[in-house]
Amino acid sequence: MASDVFVLLKTYNNSTKVDLTHDLSAQRAAVDRVLSAFRSICGPDGVSLGEAVREQHGKDESVHKCRPPDVVVFPRCVEEVSALAKVCHDHNLPIIPFGTGTGLEGGVGAVKGGVCFSLRNMDQVLDLHPEDFDVTVEPGVTRKALNAYLRDTGLWFPVDPGADASLCGMAATSASGTNAVRYGTMRENTLNLEVVLSDGRIIHTAGKGRRPRKTSAGYNLTNLFVGSEGTLGIITKTTLRLYGIPEAMVSAVCSFPSIQAAVDSTVQILQAGVPIARIGEEEREKLKIICDFKNSCENHDAYSTDVCVPLSRLPQIIVETKEDLLESRLTGPIAGHVGDGNFHCLMVVDPNDPDEQHRVHLFAERLARRALAMGGTCTGEHGVGLGKRVLLQEEVGPLAIQVMQGLKETLDPKNLMNPGKILLGLKGKRLFLGV
Amino acid sequence: MASDVFVLLKTYNNSTKVDLTHDLSAQRAAVDRVLSAFRSICGPDGVSLGEAVREQHGKDESVHKCRPPDVVVFPRCVEEVSALAKVCHDHNLPIIPFGTGTGLEGGVGAVKGGVCFSLRNMDQVLDLHPEDFDVTVEPGVTRKALNAYLRDTGLWFPVDPGADASLCGMAATSASGTNAVRYGTMRENTLNLEVVLSDGRIIHTAGKGRRPRKTSAGYNLTNLFVGSEGTLGIITKTTLRLYGIPEAMVSAVCSFPSIQAAVDSTVQILQAGVPIARIGEEEREKLKIICDFKNSCENHDAYSTDVCVPLSRLPQIIVETKEDLLESRLTGPIAGHVGDGNFHCLMVVDPNDPDEQHRVHLFAERLARRALAMGGTCTGEHGVGLGKRVLLQEEVGPLAIQVMQGLKETLDPKNLMNPGKILLGLKGKRLFLGV
Repeated sequence: MASDVFVLLKTYNNSTKVDLTHDLSAQRAAVDRVLSAFRSICGPDGVSLGEAVREQHGKDESVHKCRPPDVVVFPRCVEEVSALAKVCHDHNLPIIPFGTGTGLEGGVGAVKGGVCFSLRNMDQVLDLHPEDFDVTVEPGVTRKALNAYLRDTGLWFPVDPGADASLCGMAATSASGTNAVRYGTMRENTLNLEVVLSDGRIIHTAGKGRRPRKTSAGYNLTNLFVGSEGTLGIITKTTLRLYGIPEAMVSAVCSFPSIQAAVDSTVQILQAGVPIARIGEEEREKLKIICDFKNSCENHDAYSTDVCVPLSRLPQIIVETKEDLLESRLTGPIAGHVGDGNFHCLMVVDPNDPDEQHRVHLFAERLARRALAMGGTCTGEHGVGLGKRVLLQEEVGPLAIQVMQGLKETLDPKNLMNPGKILLGLKGKRLFLGV
Repeated sequence: MASDVFVLLKTYNNSTKVDLTHDLSAQRAAVDRVLSAFRSICGPDGVSLGEAVREQHGKDESVHKCRPPDVVVFPRCVEEVSALAKVCHDHNLPIIPFGTGTGLEGGVGAVKGGVCFSLRNMDQVLDLHPEDFDVTVEPGVTRKALNAYLRDTGLWFPVDPGADASLCGMAATSASGTNAVRYGTMRENTLNLEVVLSDGRIIHTAGKGRRPRKTSAGYNLTNLFVGSEGTLGIITKTTLRLYGIPEAMVSAVCSFPSIQAAVDSTVQILQAGVPIARIGEEEREKLKIICDFKNSCENHDAYSTDVCVPLSRLPQIIVETKEDLLESRLTGPIAGHVGDGNFHCLMVVDPNDPDEQHRVHLFAERLARRALAMGGTCTGEHGVGLGKRVLLQEEVGPLAIQVMQGLKETLDPKNLMNPGKILLGLKGKRLFLGV
């Protein structure tokens, strides 16, 4: 009973596209006034204006590009994060939190310039409680680093989005990955967060130092910040659930005559209650080979997009998506988590071919709308970032968007926290009029 | 592998208390002006001013009592809920949603009078998708009714708080129960909500008709409303995850020399990855016998309180709680979900013995503070309601309370939605000053 089962379903092959919007004009005046304050907070080595550093902190692993931040700061503790945020708040400077830069929807682009908070120097694993199956980590701790740290405890943290992402960044983007069928996503595995609000105040979403495995005490602030993509505050600590490492893991590769047959089998496996950890497709490995090759030889970009639909709609959306890829003259594999209806198109795009880039963008939009038409979501695990703001509006409708805008204005009235992400606009969008 | 394991740990026995605050003065003037509007919306039979009906809708299964609503309405569909809410909003009348009245922290008491929305006539199971493991229900559907409906599908909804509660009410209170160790709570099992806001507008937290098993699209509105106890809106539909019924269920009763040994075994069971559904204690049955007896013979009240602590702290808190019960001259069993650190004291109290009632209240407060001191929560699954508002403040701290107040004011600026629950006060509590 103490085993995880991995099922790999055989499927096919296909392709990609990209958008590059560069705007590198600096917005240094306001920043210049606060540099000495920044340096006195996190030391002269904790503030960087270098172009290479700023460039590196202005983009993630997606093709979405806008502009780099005006300055990058490297706080060493939550008190420094708080002090830096206060300065930014006083001077109306945008704040963009940065973990490992492994996001896929442009979440770290400095749309309005401002200050990138690189949190890599806060890399401590804190408060490991093996007997309670929980641990608290700072934003510089990646999931692989945590699992290496846990190696001798018999425990692990199973949420695995592929990249070796910062765990606090994974909380910020509501990441999940291939093991979500069994272990859930960051939403289910985050017990508490320490968050620095836009004015520097420090909040603990479930109360300071608390780590009950469940609670019904008050509004669920933890899950308000999970998935908020840095737009409501800076996550400086995350308390996570841990799990016993399965004594045995069983992997199986099954061939099916059709995608419908593969999905039908998945439904039956889930219905039978088999403790499946992941049910994927073989494309992932194939893709990696293609990407590694193309990246090393031809300097292509990778374009990754994801959607999630109810299980039963997977065959139809996959078939339609493959046809669309062909018609769009794109090749890129589909990698799916069949167990939860989430799948990706991972494509390689020539950054010097604007026509191909355009076709990939149109393809990704059609894919998302296809998912929406089937009762699904435009993103199962990548987040909204810059890339899916219009699609989010279509997904949840104008009133839900107004509620989100209301929450944003409540928690960040100056719109300084990672501005321009998730929501397209804010001004004048009061939820209740005339009250 | 397709089995659930139930482990019953042997433990002990003990006892209870209550607070009765009656204030039955009517606040009919504003209500009188809107009665004809109410009747035109949901028919003459859909509006009740009868004292017995109002009394019945002003209390739950707890000992917390304040006052009944001024009127009870029985809408038949979301459009009627919306129209009724609009009238209330226009006339500044409080709105108290009512499911089955099985809450345990006074969540349906009409603190400021107002209009109780009894949702029992909205009792349809909608949109069952067995192949996608999801279903949508109206607020009149209880968990037992849903599971009876599902009987022939091989599926079930496993969240089980004990009472045959309304599933939408369970979402509103973030309920869970004995199966949470394996299947999670309402937080993990709610995919989408239809909610009527205080002014009558209808929102779908994940977008209308959407039911992906996971999403990272925008702020997690679903989990903002789950656990909001009717203070942010009226839940009129809930889309839930379903699970395959285990082919086999194995129950085991184990005796341990000490609570420490029982908890140690629990940790080892969890660490080994055994698909445990629940790990409880034998007190529950014993309690039921005691309560049934006392209620039938002596007209006693039942007082139930719950806390949740990290697993490793269970032995200490249980030992201290048993000592406290003895010293407080109270008897009442402790029923625990050892698998997640959640446990209850279920006590019987003489409503005519104010001294006993006082002792039970003090005992319950000490229990909650003991849990807080151990990094736990003052409520794992009952919610805050009227009973734990001060404890919530101690649990999350003043800034988190301010954030919660800010969210409340954003979604319910007139403070009409179930006023007086969860939060103690609202006025002048702006989260950001001087912005």
